[in-house]
Amino acid sequence: MAAQLNLNVVPFVSVDNMMKLVHAIGVETFLKELSAFVEEDFLRWESFDKTPRVAAHSHDGVIELMPTSDGRLYGFKYVNGHPKNTKSGRQTVTAFGVLSDVDNGYPLLLTEMTILTALRTAATSAVAAKHLARKNSRTMAIIGNGAQSEFQALAFKALLGVNRLRLYDIDRSASDRCSRNLRGYGFEITVCSASQEAVEGADIVTTVTADKQNAVILSDNMVGAGVHINAVGGDCPGKTELQKDILTRSEVFVEYPPQTRIEGEIQQMPADFPVKELWEVIAGKAVGRAGAEQITLFDSVGFATEDFSALRYVRDKLQEHPLFENLDLLADPDEPRDLFGMLLRAAA
Amino acid sequence: MAAQLNLNVVPFVSVDNMMKLVHAIGVETFLKELSAFVEEDFLRWESFDKTPRVAAHSHDGVIELMPTSDGRLYGFKYVNGHPKNTKSGRQTVTAFGVLSDVDNGYPLLLTEMTILTALRTAATSAVAAKHLARKNSRTMAIIGNGAQSEFQALAFKALLGVNRLRLYDIDRSASDRCSRNLRGYGFEITVCSASQEAVEGADIVTTVTADKQNAVILSDNMVGAGVHINAVGGDCPGKTELQKDILTRSEVFVEYPPQTRIEGEIQQMPADFPVKELWEVIAGKAVGRAGAEQITLFDSVGFATEDFSALRYVRDKLQEHPLFENLDLLADPDEPRDLFGMLLRAAA
Repeated sequence: MAAQLNLNVVPFVSVDNMMKLVHAIGVETFLKELSAFVEEDFLRWESFDKTPRVAAHSHDGVIELMPTSDGRLYGFKYVNGHPKNTKSGRQTVTAFGVLSDVDNGYPLLLTEMTILTALRTAATSAVAAKHLARKNSRTMAIIGNGAQSEFQALAFKALLGVNRLRLYDIDRSASDRCSRNLRGYGFEITVCSASQEAVEGADIVTTVTADKQNAVILSDNMVGAGVHINAVGGDCPGKTELQKDILTRSEVFVEYPPQTRIEGEIQQMPADFPVKELWEVIAGKAVGRAGAEQITLFDSVGFATEDFSALRYVRDKLQEHPLFENLDLLADPDEPRDLFGMLLRAAA
Repeated sequence: MAAQLNLNVVPFVSVDNMMKLVHAIGVETFLKELSAFVEEDFLRWESFDKTPRVAAHSHDGVIELMPTSDGRLYGFKYVNGHPKNTKSGRQTVTAFGVLSDVDNGYPLLLTEMTILTALRTAATSAVAAKHLARKNSRTMAIIGNGAQSEFQALAFKALLGVNRLRLYDIDRSASDRCSRNLRGYGFEITVCSASQEAVEGADIVTTVTADKQNAVILSDNMVGAGVHINAVGGDCPGKTELQKDILTRSEVFVEYPPQTRIEGEIQQMPADFPVKELWEVIAGKAVGRAGAEQITLFDSVGFATEDFSALRYVRDKLQEHPLFENLDLLADPDEPRDLFGMLLRAAA
């Protein structure tokens, strides 16, 4: 990017430009390509600096910083989660992120990540399901039809060929909107009036609700043999979606155990509850699904490497699609040690 | 700020606007007012969420995230430290920061913080010295005349009335430049050819060098009775400026002990080396200087609350001086749960 010639300047992808980028690439292609970046980074899992996210919890929500680095690039995401926000017309989750050069610490990219997080979460879910769900899984139940739902559906279509959706939300209009938004993408969609109904005949069950509480979105009797559960919504302390009994019947796969034990569905279980790491399955170091009857469960909370993959992907794509502005973010005195002189000269 | 009416928009203070803001307020007034914010936040120290910074160390430097919150506002700073950067025309330290509303997690301000960090570091040093140095301290030695030096000088003038400077740098041209930059600010300045010479007759000794190593910028024999040492440059593991013996002869004051024991001069000392916390002195809970002969030492590493104070101050000042741009950083669908619908409509 030509922008890098001026040391003061950081390429910035606004929400508007992110939407243009998604359309320029095509949302399904975007999800497919992004999934490849996510998978690639899971494959080199051991080369990342990993740390649980740094969370500031408050009564109504949480603000988190999620940093990681592969030694060459450094990325972090700022993300909030405030379920009550929708009442004031705000998003439950908003995010932005930065990718930097480890060699000199200078940011290479600042980008909105509200839309990008929805895309990377869906891409990660689909990558996990590609390795864990039964082959020929075509029908997915989606329980919780908020901001994440369409992205999940499209990622599962792009990676697994899912083409039948069974939607349920406590707010019927959310399911109707999801169904309407996905018109023209080749899904056969059934809007259901109970979660029990939604899971009937589903190969994959995605739970992606927003309430911050220990809820039972999925009870034990609703989960049949061979199902893959993609549990996305339970992602912070005190916020779970699955009845505990499901966890003991399933083989549970997680991103980063130290974080998932605090934030995921397995926060309900003892500290030594057995889990497998997704990256080990992808890298062929651990068995994924053991048979057609097994229940597999991806206890997803979202991890910093996935944001890193998304930042890398966007930065790559900007070379072909220069949908960014130049932000005057970094002080760049003619003489590096003369910061005060720069200030003085600016007055003149 | 009117900007807050549009939920997608975050006020952004560029480097250019930060310089304009400093000049609109006046650099000495800026430092004085900022010091008051820093002091105010030290006074309510116990109301902050405090955590050591999250550091990603690499061979040539470090990238850090420094978050904190008082329960109403949340702030974090991104900052790098790469001493070798000056060789490629880059700054050793660059930074930017964000202030957010804890209630909804939305950012209220994004700002450059390279210049702002220099200002807040100087303001914090001066606040500490106001409480620790001998009254009527007028002469300050500054060892290391890089990007921080002029800001330190001006803050000590604004808060303590320091008006005589004794400058030393291994690179004489740095001292000459510092001296030139400070012309017209009412200092009597002596450029010295050795640090030993610089400390002669100094009431306050500021060390603010950049090399990432355990150096001896100040040796024990150079520190006379009654001096206040403002040790700014030793601020990460393996980077110190003072000979160990000085620490045992001094009363040592720190910002946040868990961080300073890792990053400050006291990394040279055992884990139980006695220190006092600056906030306790400011709040009258601990004695500062015990007598005219005592050596006081502020072992400064920079703490997140100081950045928080700076972010608060800038945000306040923007009301009077609207020197910001509006950044389209946050996705703001008409219907909060309909992120995908927003994306669809953007294509039309």
